[in-house]
Amino acid sequence: MELITEINPTLLNELSAIVGSSHILQSREDREIYGQDETEDLQFMPAVVVKPATAGEVSSILRLANREKIAVTPRGAGTGLSGGALPVFGGIVLSTERLNRILEIDERNLQATVEPGVINQVFRDAVEARGLFYPPDPASRGSCFLGGNLAENAGGPKAVKYGTTKDYVLNCEVVLPTGEIIWTGANVLKNSTGYNLTQLIIGSEGTLGIITKIVFRLIPLPTQNLLMLVPFFSPEKACEAVSAVFRAGFTPSAMEFMERDAIDFVLKFVDVKIPVKEEHMAHLLIEVDGHDLEVLFKDCERISEIMYSHECDEVMFADTAQQKSDLWRMRRAVGEAVKSHSVYKEEDTVVPRAELPVLLRGVKEIGRKYGFKSVCYGHAGDGNLHVNIIRDNMSEEDWNHKVPMGIREIFHLCVQLKGTISGEHGIGYVQKTYMDIPFNTSQLAIQKGIKTLFDPNGILNPGKMFV
Amino acid sequence: MELITEINPTLLNELSAIVGSSHILQSREDREIYGQDETEDLQFMPAVVVKPATAGEVSSILRLANREKIAVTPRGAGTGLSGGALPVFGGIVLSTERLNRILEIDERNLQATVEPGVINQVFRDAVEARGLFYPPDPASRGSCFLGGNLAENAGGPKAVKYGTTKDYVLNCEVVLPTGEIIWTGANVLKNSTGYNLTQLIIGSEGTLGIITKIVFRLIPLPTQNLLMLVPFFSPEKACEAVSAVFRAGFTPSAMEFMERDAIDFVLKFVDVKIPVKEEHMAHLLIEVDGHDLEVLFKDCERISEIMYSHECDEVMFADTAQQKSDLWRMRRAVGEAVKSHSVYKEEDTVVPRAELPVLLRGVKEIGRKYGFKSVCYGHAGDGNLHVNIIRDNMSEEDWNHKVPMGIREIFHLCVQLKGTISGEHGIGYVQKTYMDIPFNTSQLAIQKGIKTLFDPNGILNPGKMFV
Repeated sequence: MELITEINPTLLNELSAIVGSSHILQSREDREIYGQDETEDLQFMPAVVVKPATAGEVSSILRLANREKIAVTPRGAGTGLSGGALPVFGGIVLSTERLNRILEIDERNLQATVEPGVINQVFRDAVEARGLFYPPDPASRGSCFLGGNLAENAGGPKAVKYGTTKDYVLNCEVVLPTGEIIWTGANVLKNSTGYNLTQLIIGSEGTLGIITKIVFRLIPLPTQNLLMLVPFFSPEKACEAVSAVFRAGFTPSAMEFMERDAIDFVLKFVDVKIPVKEEHMAHLLIEVDGHDLEVLFKDCERISEIMYSHECDEVMFADTAQQKSDLWRMRRAVGEAVKSHSVYKEEDTVVPRAELPVLLRGVKEIGRKYGFKSVCYGHAGDGNLHVNIIRDNMSEEDWNHKVPMGIREIFHLCVQLKGTISGEHGIGYVQKTYMDIPFNTSQLAIQKGIKTLFDPNGILNPGKMFV
Repeated sequence: MELITEINPTLLNELSAIVGSSHILQSREDREIYGQDETEDLQFMPAVVVKPATAGEVSSILRLANREKIAVTPRGAGTGLSGGALPVFGGIVLSTERLNRILEIDERNLQATVEPGVINQVFRDAVEARGLFYPPDPASRGSCFLGGNLAENAGGPKAVKYGTTKDYVLNCEVVLPTGEIIWTGANVLKNSTGYNLTQLIIGSEGTLGIITKIVFRLIPLPTQNLLMLVPFFSPEKACEAVSAVFRAGFTPSAMEFMERDAIDFVLKFVDVKIPVKEEHMAHLLIEVDGHDLEVLFKDCERISEIMYSHECDEVMFADTAQQKSDLWRMRRAVGEAVKSHSVYKEEDTVVPRAELPVLLRGVKEIGRKYGFKSVCYGHAGDGNLHVNIIRDNMSEEDWNHKVPMGIREIFHLCVQLKGTISGEHGIGYVQKTYMDIPFNTSQLAIQKGIKTLFDPNGILNPGKMFV
């Protein structure tokens, strides 16, 4: 794929004819904004930004790009952490921000049909108003788009009980790179009809097609929840407590881990007060939800017992809605807090839940070996540990060469523990050089074959997932 | 693909060298047994049956078949209802019956690794003994293999609360038609690393690869359940009651529908007594499960109220374990009961739950139009209605020509209601001529492209899914 930094006037006219000239951005400032996402400090300049409003317009843009062999990078809200929305070959950034309607909330069938540019929080609020629940809640839920959530198979704290984005998508309308518009499945809870194209599209990071409609299944809204914060003297004991809870038969609706540094960073960043003692080396944030408060109190009692048997300090319960909201605000802000402190690389490691203590120990050892500091936190109930590697004053040489060697070693450890290199952020641009770690040549060949089948000219989101 | 009815001695020697001569079947009787499954009265003769015991042996067989361009039909227990295991091009039937070990039940991570030839019930019993739960429970669970469950994405009554087979598979080892052995993913609860090959294999009906190991996730075993049987005077009112329950915020662990004829057939077939009045035209079998009996009693009370508001007759509770087991035995035997009465075609229709009354009415109207009788029952909570079309004394001409026209009309209705043509049985051999109904040319082209990518010579399970 050729790098295209400027678009010729004829093509520009064609694009204008498709979306209308007011929905094309060409200024340097605009292209800069659409040339970055939330991934590190990376920046690539697209030649042009187009904002279609219908699947038909998306199709016309892709047909044109295919004819001209111009890269098209689909973009949601640009909140991604693996560089999936970065236009690394310039060309066209296709923003889905105008595809932003909730088309239907079907209360009879507990389903909803939406466009990809709807913000996660807007959607969850809309269905909550009808007593329904859409569980996937990435940290960026206040700004991220549902289309991007599908592209990366986003997770979030609730995934531990309710699953990730993929578990709520029944069907989607997708524009293929060649311009054809297809539905991937049907609006049903069970489907054994043909290959599962829906699940092939989810998590494909905008490399196989552009999602233009999504049919979600919804579930009844849990009416009650309880939240507890548990300080530990040892991070590894905290991780051990996590799998003990599940083994005892409980499935909390959130089971989040934050090591001491994460707490220190975030408490400087948000205005939340929690009593942290010097000897607290990690915290678990545990939520249970359901419909019967009495049952939840009993569950919390039993879970507390499990915590104490793993040598925690005093379990704190959030007594008010304000306290709950503060604790969640704190947890959600960890990534931003670290980012505000220093440039960092965020690794999205995932292993079987009970291997978490081994992973955590390994990450720290590898950090010492390669001379980097990491802040670890994440969705412990899923074995999904975010490892933020802090740059601070590290030299260019060390940051660009030594750190990647350390990351390779961390990823090798994940795979050795039967895990993999991304739990919910995707591979995108920044992790693609590590794809040889989870996958051998046969596995990669099949995946690349699928890419070529969908996108023979390689125009859609080139430079992502594969080297 | 060429029909191969006999295997030449050189090839036979090669196959013997791979699996050992005692694991090759050639007699007419054996080939007849392996030439049918539970689908209608269909029979195709394989040239030879081979029984490998390792992924390596499966790989060698596929390499050989690929070299010689011989059809290979993978076979589990042969309990399929869409003819997926029928060797329609003769050649080799590859039985997974010797790949029958539970390799690990990992209690720390709530996971298990098994071979594909393990019987569903054997597996569920083994994990239940450790306090764990594997929910998917097709009617044939006492004999069907887990590998076949993956191939067809099998469901069963529990799917309504717990999901289908696809929701419990984390990873699998697959031998590709070209002989390469790959793992499709990682043993983790969240995964955004590469395309979702795991979900591409599940439901692919043995056309993309042969599954040789499966890593399942397990959940804590619910310790309590309650079961109720609700008679209705109108089948449509019963269907309406179903979606009302979900809309009210309840998710029963089973929500099964049986129309009057299904009850009549099955009560002649199994030794179970239930008080059926002449005016009962349908029954719902509803189960709730969980950990707290008091909560379940409350749920049942509220669900009963919803039933009564939909004009049911008296709700019956199963008071003893024996009664529960009898009711389930009855429900599971409906298919067999109908089969023992007459040859039949089983359609596996599925629509959004609230459209069930419309589908049911449509099926009966279409039956009247084309002159066939159907027995309808199934997983109403999932909108998954099994339509058994009874042959009785129908002429060859009507059975082979008029009935398929009626089936086409039923499937068109499903698609019009945003549903599809198979919820849990798969397409296999008997439904492939209807694939133009749910899918247009673009959708079929992508699926056929995937097939060709995995299986360039088309040797694996040819004659299935696509015409």
